[in-house]
Amino acid sequence: MTRSAQWTPVPVPAGTDPHTVPSHWFNLVPSLPAPVPAPVEPEDTGDQDAWGPRIALQQRIRLDAVRAQDSASEPFLAIPERVREELAAIGRPTPLLRARALERYLETPARIYLKREDVLPTGSFKLNSAVAQAYFAAEQGVDTLVTETGAGQWGHAVAWAARRFGLKAVIYWAGVSARQKPGRKALIEMLGGEVYSSPSDRTPVGKALLRDGRHLLGSLGTAIGEAICHAAQHPDTRYISGSNLPHVLIQQTVIGQETKAQLAALGERPDTLVACVGGGSNLGGFMGPYLAEKAERGEELLLLGAESASAPRLTEGTLRYDHADPEGITPLTKSYTLGRDYELPETHVGGLRQHSGSPIIGVLRGEGLLDAVAYQEADAFETGRLVLSTEGMLIAPESCHALRAAVQRAVQARESGREEVIVACVSGNGVLDLDGYLAHR
Amino acid sequence: MTRSAQWTPVPVPAGTDPHTVPSHWFNLVPSLPAPVPAPVEPEDTGDQDAWGPRIALQQRIRLDAVRAQDSASEPFLAIPERVREELAAIGRPTPLLRARALERYLETPARIYLKREDVLPTGSFKLNSAVAQAYFAAEQGVDTLVTETGAGQWGHAVAWAARRFGLKAVIYWAGVSARQKPGRKALIEMLGGEVYSSPSDRTPVGKALLRDGRHLLGSLGTAIGEAICHAAQHPDTRYISGSNLPHVLIQQTVIGQETKAQLAALGERPDTLVACVGGGSNLGGFMGPYLAEKAERGEELLLLGAESASAPRLTEGTLRYDHADPEGITPLTKSYTLGRDYELPETHVGGLRQHSGSPIIGVLRGEGLLDAVAYQEADAFETGRLVLSTEGMLIAPESCHALRAAVQRAVQARESGREEVIVACVSGNGVLDLDGYLAHR
Repeated sequence: MTRSAQWTPVPVPAGTDPHTVPSHWFNLVPSLPAPVPAPVEPEDTGDQDAWGPRIALQQRIRLDAVRAQDSASEPFLAIPERVREELAAIGRPTPLLRARALERYLETPARIYLKREDVLPTGSFKLNSAVAQAYFAAEQGVDTLVTETGAGQWGHAVAWAARRFGLKAVIYWAGVSARQKPGRKALIEMLGGEVYSSPSDRTPVGKALLRDGRHLLGSLGTAIGEAICHAAQHPDTRYISGSNLPHVLIQQTVIGQETKAQLAALGERPDTLVACVGGGSNLGGFMGPYLAEKAERGEELLLLGAESASAPRLTEGTLRYDHADPEGITPLTKSYTLGRDYELPETHVGGLRQHSGSPIIGVLRGEGLLDAVAYQEADAFETGRLVLSTEGMLIAPESCHALRAAVQRAVQARESGREEVIVACVSGNGVLDLDGYLAHR
Repeated sequence: MTRSAQWTPVPVPAGTDPHTVPSHWFNLVPSLPAPVPAPVEPEDTGDQDAWGPRIALQQRIRLDAVRAQDSASEPFLAIPERVREELAAIGRPTPLLRARALERYLETPARIYLKREDVLPTGSFKLNSAVAQAYFAAEQGVDTLVTETGAGQWGHAVAWAARRFGLKAVIYWAGVSARQKPGRKALIEMLGGEVYSSPSDRTPVGKALLRDGRHLLGSLGTAIGEAICHAAQHPDTRYISGSNLPHVLIQQTVIGQETKAQLAALGERPDTLVACVGGGSNLGGFMGPYLAEKAERGEELLLLGAESASAPRLTEGTLRYDHADPEGITPLTKSYTLGRDYELPETHVGGLRQHSGSPIIGVLRGEGLLDAVAYQEADAFETGRLVLSTEGMLIAPESCHALRAAVQRAVQARESGREEVIVACVSGNGVLDLDGYLAHR
């Protein structure tokens, strides 16, 4: 049979070659303009209360390999071959899509590129880090992983990765999100994950919140507290995080490295990078590999974080030491915070719904490298419907915030006539968030 | 910054280069061992009743370009550049995944490969043909596309593609599936599609079925009848099909061509190709490009279709002329059929739920090239849960049938010790079919 010479079949089947996946994680920390403030022990409790010294507790319940990453000073950390294979198998490198239909609709001279983390098997970027941490856990001989989840995307990713590496997964899920998403809950359970709605009556932290009638809707913070409790009480279990901490941001830098290579192949240089920001791991992973370029180009390269107006840490919070959980069993870390007593309202944007965030994001924002903007949920979903009706992608409520910022830049570019190159990270897909879309129809 | 030489970044960003997509569709018809029997006019009604001559009606309501494809004799048909661009943008070539975790679970020496049509933006292979037909409609200056859908995947794909090409979409949806899937219905409507549950009171065909109390659950056939009625009554509208007909199978051959190239790059040669079969378009598109190899290798290459035991056309039906709709407003076509009066039971496998099928599949099966097997819904979902728990993919209920056949082959391979290469088409994903999974938990 003849075959036209026009067709260049993919030389290697997509999803099967680990060598198309970055060989190293990029370590953001040495590239920051200021050191990341170390966690400290709270003075008011010290080592006197039931939880003892917080930092020692963290060291006991965390995986050895991630603790090593948190204190690494090398600019690149090798990705284990088995992790690269898994990253290839889940579909990395993910596509970089030129959003031409959205551009046409906006009548903008800007060129909008979307980094498509929404196409990963669990529907969000969270899987990049879950795969790495599950691998480290399996290497360390750990039996069970326990974690918290806000919107459910991290919990889903952990259940997925745990299953792939033969581990058990226990997930404390911010109650309001868990109740909103029966489909995602069912999926996590079908993957073998144990799910508990937080605050729960399974841990001292959850019991205290229920007893006092505080944070009854649940939040990432309440779930963090409960997951740590759980780990403290189960010696065969390790506690892992999907956000905030340096190792998570580092593990997410596959996103930014791929984006750089893909843009370079197109001969493009970004003017604006935009991502939504909750704990900061998609933003950090996406923008981290651009820190050297940011240092060089200054205001010519805009780094923009889009947050939820229901948890406006970067736009209205303060940069100070605070606990990541309302009960205060985490060490104090320095980041933008609304205070651990801030009662988060009910929203469909569970991934951006937390009172504090990442110390690395704190440095970026504090040093003036990161701009920020906050959006109301209804406005974000409006952008989501625009993206669906132009590009045909149903994106996660969190990602809608990033896209809203991208759209606003593109509209400004129309007014100024500037051929701005805007690159947005699409952190997840919204198929399991359809109810949120429908609530704002 | 240094970068390890181990990393070969993707030379061209995934999803942006139309030249990695096949340049031509493969025309199955000239490769068949027997001619495809032409449609004929029913004798009992002829041109006497309200619908007049069926074949002339079809010619009037269909797109010019697809009618040309149905009668083409060339072995390859060029894919218009704009369609190739769109196929690249939706993520073609789709990944070919080695299902190593499934292999390990089954302890099989077989190598199982999965062609991942589930990763396309609407969650199924249907988009390949919808994009082509929407392009042809836009070229012809058509205003609106009307179609039927069984499980909703084709309707979703048509709404998606119509939006991309600036067309309206009207969709008649087999009632039982439409009611089972409020999420998919909402998505189609958010894309601008008009959805009607069939049988409806909007068309003479629907009204007759409602009046007589026949086929009240609805089926692909009832929806076909209503969509044709609708087109007959709206001159600015064209009727398109997502299955059965030669042009649809031809447009789906991007699947098989990519699979061949991807397997060749791995140095693999398939022993078994398996796909689920409803109207036959994923099976035909996947296996069509292997017809020459099948003619050469005979029984050494097994082509296997997996159907639903609730609509067992290939395993229990007969190869004869029949209407594709219960009211008989389609021409008679020759395929395996259970008879147009066969009342299909309620199942969650809407994509395989029809009484007849494709004339091309009829030839393949009738000439002994295609083997077939039928599965109960509950057994198919059990395989779906196995695939989720090993490979982490939630596949569509229809695809579960194909995977069940693949798993059975792999188990036989374990017993015989044969290193069989099994390649299965994963026609769609199951995120919008979670309720079906839960009904069989």
